[in-house]
Amino acid sequence: MKTAVVGLGYVGLPLTIRLSQLNIEVLAIDTNLKKIKKLQKGILPFAQTEPSLEDFFKKEFKKGTLVFTTTFEKLSEIELIIVCVDTPIIGKVPNYKSLKNALKSIASYLKNGSIVVIESTVAPNTSKNLVIPILEKETKMKINKDFFVATVPERIRPNFIFEQLTTLSRVIGISDKKIENRLRQIYSRVTFGDIDFTNLTTAETVKTVENSFRDVNIAFANEIAIACEEIGVDVWKIRELVNKSPFHNMHMPGAGVGGHCIPKDPWLLASSVKDNRLNLIETSRKINDGMPAHIFALAQEALNEKKIKTSGANFAILGYSYVGNSDDTRNSPTEMLISILKSKKIKHKVHDPYVKKFSNQSIENMAKGAHILIIMVNHDIYRKINYKNMAGIMKTKIIIDGRNVVPIEEVNKLGFNYKGIGNKIT
Amino acid sequence: MKTAVVGLGYVGLPLTIRLSQLNIEVLAIDTNLKKIKKLQKGILPFAQTEPSLEDFFKKEFKKGTLVFTTTFEKLSEIELIIVCVDTPIIGKVPNYKSLKNALKSIASYLKNGSIVVIESTVAPNTSKNLVIPILEKETKMKINKDFFVATVPERIRPNFIFEQLTTLSRVIGISDKKIENRLRQIYSRVTFGDIDFTNLTTAETVKTVENSFRDVNIAFANEIAIACEEIGVDVWKIRELVNKSPFHNMHMPGAGVGGHCIPKDPWLLASSVKDNRLNLIETSRKINDGMPAHIFALAQEALNEKKIKTSGANFAILGYSYVGNSDDTRNSPTEMLISILKSKKIKHKVHDPYVKKFSNQSIENMAKGAHILIIMVNHDIYRKINYKNMAGIMKTKIIIDGRNVVPIEEVNKLGFNYKGIGNKIT
Repeated sequence: MKTAVVGLGYVGLPLTIRLSQLNIEVLAIDTNLKKIKKLQKGILPFAQTEPSLEDFFKKEFKKGTLVFTTTFEKLSEIELIIVCVDTPIIGKVPNYKSLKNALKSIASYLKNGSIVVIESTVAPNTSKNLVIPILEKETKMKINKDFFVATVPERIRPNFIFEQLTTLSRVIGISDKKIENRLRQIYSRVTFGDIDFTNLTTAETVKTVENSFRDVNIAFANEIAIACEEIGVDVWKIRELVNKSPFHNMHMPGAGVGGHCIPKDPWLLASSVKDNRLNLIETSRKINDGMPAHIFALAQEALNEKKIKTSGANFAILGYSYVGNSDDTRNSPTEMLISILKSKKIKHKVHDPYVKKFSNQSIENMAKGAHILIIMVNHDIYRKINYKNMAGIMKTKIIIDGRNVVPIEEVNKLGFNYKGIGNKIT
Repeated sequence: MKTAVVGLGYVGLPLTIRLSQLNIEVLAIDTNLKKIKKLQKGILPFAQTEPSLEDFFKKEFKKGTLVFTTTFEKLSEIELIIVCVDTPIIGKVPNYKSLKNALKSIASYLKNGSIVVIESTVAPNTSKNLVIPILEKETKMKINKDFFVATVPERIRPNFIFEQLTTLSRVIGISDKKIENRLRQIYSRVTFGDIDFTNLTTAETVKTVENSFRDVNIAFANEIAIACEEIGVDVWKIRELVNKSPFHNMHMPGAGVGGHCIPKDPWLLASSVKDNRLNLIETSRKINDGMPAHIFALAQEALNEKKIKTSGANFAILGYSYVGNSDDTRNSPTEMLISILKSKKIKHKVHDPYVKKFSNQSIENMAKGAHILIIMVNHDIYRKINYKNMAGIMKTKIIIDGRNVVPIEEVNKLGFNYKGIGNKIT
C-alpha cells in the first residue's frame, strides 16, 4: 500500500523513515519549502540529537524511493494518508489552522475508498466535529461510504522517538470496522507493541488523558518539592522513600515542564469539556508553568543571603532545551526564566551545547564573573562540571539546582551557597 | 525487649498481635474500657472482615502473655513504647488531643533510656514541635540523653492489614543514631520488607506525601471520569488504554474516597506548610469529597429522564463501608450521600452485609418499591445481583453504578436506565 505523510515534524518525519524501512512507498509532504529542500538533499533538518535518527534517514534516503514535496497532487494515487501536522494552542485554546489547511488540501485529491489518519494530537471529538465535516464538505463525499477516518495519536517523546515509535502499543480509533485490517497491516509493522482498536473519540481522549496524567503527576512532585523546601526536608529523599510504597510512582520535580505535548495536551482535553471545569488539570498547568518563577525566587533568596541585590547580579544559566541531551527547545522553561530576567533588566548569559544560539562559548567563559549559576536542564555534561574551577571564576559562589544534578557535598565544601528545587537544606 | 503499644485501633491491635507472634511481651494499652474488656475476654472488637486477623488474635490470646489494660503504670518497666493513637482532623485542622493525652500519660512513667515510637500519622515536624517538647516538659528529661523518639508511620490498609504489616518496607525516623539497632531488631522482625532509617521529619513527610499521592491520583481519575461523561466515552476503557502507555498508572474513579487515611493525611501535610498553599492537594480533596454529590447528580439526571421527581423517589443504596468487603465505615462516602438525601427529605434505604445497622434485610427487601438503585461500594456480593429479580421488584428501573460492578449489557437488555461514574453511554 502506498502511503502519504502530511507534516514532517517530530512525528511525521520519523514515521516517514519508519515506513520506508518497511519498504512502503511514502509521499512525504510539508508546506515548508526550506525544510523540503533540505530533505530532498538528504539533510535531516532537526532532531540531530535523536539516537540513530540521522543514520536511519540517510540509509532510507539512499534507496531513492522517498519523495519529498510541498504539493498534494500525487495524493490522488494514494489510499492511506497520515496527517502529522502541528496542533498547537494559543493561550489555552487549540489552534487547528494547520490541520484545517492540511485537510482542505487533502480533500482536493482524496481518492474514493481512502483512509485519512490523524496522528496529530487533537481534543476529544475533533474527528467527529471538525475532521469529518471538513472532508465531507470539501469532497462532497460521504464518510464510511466514500472515505474513512482514523485517529492514531502519536506516542513518542524526545530522546526516544524511534525506540518508542517501534515498540510502544498504539490506540487506533476508526470511523468504521471495515478499515481495521488495512490499518492493522500497516501499524502492526510500524511497532512491535499491541494495536488496540476503538472508536475515534476514545482514541483522542486516551491521548490527551495520558499527557494530562503526566502533567498532574509532575505538578504533584513540584508542589511537594516546594512544600519540602518549607518543611526543611529533601524532596529527593522523600521521593525515594515514597516510591518504596506499593503503587507509588512519584515523578521528578524540576525547573519547569516544556516540550510540545505536556504543556499543551491538557488544554486540548479541557477544550472538549464545557459543562465541567477541569480544576485539577488547570491547577497542574499553573503549578508547572510557575516553576521558572520559583527558580527565580530561589535565586533571589540566595542572593539576598549573600547581600547581593538581584537587580545588579549577573546570572549564568545552564541549559535552554526543554529536556536533557536534546536540542528540542519547544516551550523551553529557560525561555520563561529569561523573560522574567529581561522584564527586570537583569544581566544574564545562557549556555547550551545543543542549541546553536547558546553553544558558541564554554561553560567557564559563560560563567566568568557571574554572581549566580542556575542549572535548568539535566544535560549529561552538566553533571560533570568542575566546581573548583567555577569557584575561582564566579564573582560569588551561588548555585541554584533545578534538576538535582549538583554534587551537594562537594559544592558546600567549596563554599557555594546551594539551593535546589525541593532541597534548601544547608 | 518488652514493649508497650498505646492505642489499640486498626494500627495498634494488629501490631500487638504481630509482636506477640514474635514472642515479644506486649503491654497493650487503650483508654477505652469497653474495648479493653472485650480484648481481655479474647474477643476481637472490630475488623472482623480482616483476613486471618481474628484467628491470629485468638491464637496469641491463648498464650496468656498479652496484657490488655487501660492504665499506664506498668510502662515504668518498659523501654519501647509504640504510640498508635488516632490523629484525626476537625475540618482541615489536625486534632492531636489523643496524642497529647497519650504522651502525658506515658511521660508519667517514662523510664530512663526509653524509646517512644510514634506510628500514628502526623504532620511533618510534629515530633520536633509537639512530641519531644511535651515529653521533655512533662518528664524533665532530655531528648537523646535520657530518652529517644522515633517516627515509624504505619503503612497498612483495610483488607490487607496483616499482609501489609508483615511485608511492606518501613521508614523509621530517629532522634538519634544510637537507637537504630534497637529499632532494627524489632521492626526487621515485624516486617520482611526493607527498613529505611532517616530523620524524624523526613519519615513524617514521606507518610503524608504517600497518601496525598494516592488522593491526587484518585482525584485525577474522578476528574477524568466526569469529563468522560460529558465527552461521551467510557472512562474504564480510557483507563485501560492510558495504562498501556509506559509509566502510566491511572487510578480507579469512584463514588468517593473514605477511610481514615486518604481523606485526612493531605490536610496533615497541608497544616505543616504555611508560606505555600498546596493548591493541587486541596483541589484533589475537593474533587474526591464531591463524588457522592456527583452520584446524586447522576441520580437526578436519570430520574429526570424517566420523568420522576427526585423529591418523591425512593432511593435504594448498596454499601455503607468505605471499601469493598470490609466493615470499616470511617469517613464513608455513603454517609455523605445519605446526608444529601436527608437534607432534601428524600426517602432511602441502605444495605450493607458487613455493617450491623444495614445488614438486617436482604438486597431484594431493601430494593422493593425503589425508583433507583445506587451502588456505592464494590462488595463482591454486589457483583452477583440478580437483575432480573430487581427489574420485577423495583418501581422504576434505574441503576447508578458508583463502582463499575454492574453488567451493563445485561441491565440494558432488561430495560434499566444505567449510568455509571465516567460512563453515561447508553
